[in-house]
Amino acid sequence: MPYPGFQFEVTHRDSHTHARCGRLTTPHGVLETPSFIFCATKGAMKSLTMQQIRESGAEIILSNTYHLYLQPGPGFVQKRGGLHKMMGWDRPMLTDSGGFQIFSLGHGGVANEIKGHRHCSIPKTLLKIDEHGAEFRSYIDGQKKILTPELSIEIQQKLGADLILVLDECTPFHVERRYTEQSMERSHRWAIRSREQFQKSPTPQGLYGIIQGGIYEDLRKRSTQFIAEQDFFGQAIGGSLGGDRQQMYDIVDMTCSMMHPNRPTHLLGIGGIRDLWHGVAQGIDTFDCVHPTRLARHGGALLYPEMAEGKEFISLKNARFAEDTEPVDPTCSCYCCKNFTRAYIHYLFKARELLGGQLLAIHNVAFMMRLVREIRDAIRDGNFREKGRLRGML
Amino acid sequence: MPYPGFQFEVTHRDSHTHARCGRLTTPHGVLETPSFIFCATKGAMKSLTMQQIRESGAEIILSNTYHLYLQPGPGFVQKRGGLHKMMGWDRPMLTDSGGFQIFSLGHGGVANEIKGHRHCSIPKTLLKIDEHGAEFRSYIDGQKKILTPELSIEIQQKLGADLILVLDECTPFHVERRYTEQSMERSHRWAIRSREQFQKSPTPQGLYGIIQGGIYEDLRKRSTQFIAEQDFFGQAIGGSLGGDRQQMYDIVDMTCSMMHPNRPTHLLGIGGIRDLWHGVAQGIDTFDCVHPTRLARHGGALLYPEMAEGKEFISLKNARFAEDTEPVDPTCSCYCCKNFTRAYIHYLFKARELLGGQLLAIHNVAFMMRLVREIRDAIRDGNFREKGRLRGML
Repeated sequence: MPYPGFQFEVTHRDSHTHARCGRLTTPHGVLETPSFIFCATKGAMKSLTMQQIRESGAEIILSNTYHLYLQPGPGFVQKRGGLHKMMGWDRPMLTDSGGFQIFSLGHGGVANEIKGHRHCSIPKTLLKIDEHGAEFRSYIDGQKKILTPELSIEIQQKLGADLILVLDECTPFHVERRYTEQSMERSHRWAIRSREQFQKSPTPQGLYGIIQGGIYEDLRKRSTQFIAEQDFFGQAIGGSLGGDRQQMYDIVDMTCSMMHPNRPTHLLGIGGIRDLWHGVAQGIDTFDCVHPTRLARHGGALLYPEMAEGKEFISLKNARFAEDTEPVDPTCSCYCCKNFTRAYIHYLFKARELLGGQLLAIHNVAFMMRLVREIRDAIRDGNFREKGRLRGML
Repeated sequence: MPYPGFQFEVTHRDSHTHARCGRLTTPHGVLETPSFIFCATKGAMKSLTMQQIRESGAEIILSNTYHLYLQPGPGFVQKRGGLHKMMGWDRPMLTDSGGFQIFSLGHGGVANEIKGHRHCSIPKTLLKIDEHGAEFRSYIDGQKKILTPELSIEIQQKLGADLILVLDECTPFHVERRYTEQSMERSHRWAIRSREQFQKSPTPQGLYGIIQGGIYEDLRKRSTQFIAEQDFFGQAIGGSLGGDRQQMYDIVDMTCSMMHPNRPTHLLGIGGIRDLWHGVAQGIDTFDCVHPTRLARHGGALLYPEMAEGKEFISLKNARFAEDTEPVDPTCSCYCCKNFTRAYIHYLFKARELLGGQLLAIHNVAFMMRLVREIRDAIRDGNFREKGRLRGML
């Protein structure tokens, strides 16, 4: 193993799907998979302390290289003893490479387009992208910055998360096949440079390659094989996943079918309830998304569609909850659901009390962790597909 | 005792000052005094869950009748089973009468003037004040509202806090003696009406009278005697306390010297470190102030002046903390001080991460509770004055 201290062991396999349970060993403990990674974007959660997200059940978090690069800077984090120590989190952690933010902010709101959502206008900050790397403008002070594969790895080594990613170009949905292909090939060269940089002075971190190729089966195949041949600890699926949910499932399915069978596999930026069931069925081990915590700040509580009129959440700002004496989720045992009514949470949002968002974030973290525990238990018990169908998820 | 379930027992008296330790028994447990009451203004803390403030050591909180009257309304709270149940707080709680907010907002920022601070401009909402009560405009929807002594008690009975206050006019500093005297006399009549209303259908709550009289010794004397003669469970010192700290100490001193000796005594709206030592020395049992939690949101961490260059706090937003590897307070064992550096907190404020304010609120609550424990221990050990002098506080 070229990644000492790291191991990924598949402990259970589902017989009907590609779902599997695993144990991902890191210097900060073992992560049971499938699991979900919560976003502490700038080295902090937006509304909870690390203690609260741990008490809500979270097992792994991520921070964003792009944001931390710009502020407070990797040297600052290193001086504080690394991200774990600075943030007060002693469990597994992942950092992305910075690619996603540069390109999504750079193209002006492509983040949504990758998932096929409507266009939203974010000022473009990407100045230039070439073989060397990506040049962009800092949203903090307007200064020109450059991110190269080598620098991304250097930064991530200073940040010191357990799982780290190669720099890639996150190709959006609206570009042509030709651009997707060229971008993929450059991302492959960047992956090699990332790996080489990492090898120069290896740190106790597990490096993930990222599979590109957009919505094109042959490109996904080439990218999957390429990443599998390189000496990465893990593999992640990146880039455009199409224009709607079904296309995403199709792309993830075809990609997974060709992937390295023994590496932990991460699906970047996806976090819907149905998406998790489907992703796990296709062989995904970990997911990340800002959705659960961002949704909470906007008044949304995650619920199974059967309890949310077919949607995956209810909006506590809605007037129909003004007198609702039920907990947010009567089946949940989190601090929010055990102690407070929907009416109180509704009131908190009306009165603009931040506590409303905090309580929903506690619930949403607890919900996601209950979801992955349910999925893991089902795989171990041999009834994953059955459970997923009963839930109306598969 | 006309207040079944309530008791106040003085357990220790200091031999050099009027400082005392007490046990204030309420339906939600015993409060050791001297103690400090944290403000959960609208039925929620601004940045912490009740669990967090409890874990930080808080023993009693208060909510504001004025705010809860306007939103979500006392009926809403009553339907949720009262404030305790709605907020998830099962320890002692106090509600004020609403008078302070009506008059301080009404006079346009008088809250600060009472403490002799500079004038700040808050839109005036007080429309009329007469024998019947106070008419004001709701800041929620602009509707005309009226608060009478009877209504304030009715509302507080619905809210269901343990300790409740009579409605008074909180006379500001800038008015003439003649106004202060007339206002005091009306407040006395309101106190009687509040008490009568409470008696109509007594609830398991302890009613406090409020002593007025502004900065005038003879008026304070009359008011103190008047309140002592009425059948209140506790007594609070309200109204203007002068233009500076020394004048406040003088007024509190003269008022305390004349007060009912066996009733729990509250000093309204005061929460400085030095103020607590002085207040306790003069016989005050409980204090409340938004200061500790509001200060935290603005980047301030409470510290003894010896550690804060003579001030009672440090501002973590200050650039001098940008690389400071110390905890906020190296002598503190709260979650914030045990896990994070000043540099990280500084960064959080710079990055506009709310976590910065949350962590400082945890520290400030822990600091205040450590302060009152230190004071209680010193009284019990018979060295209160000595300790206060050593600290440079008395």
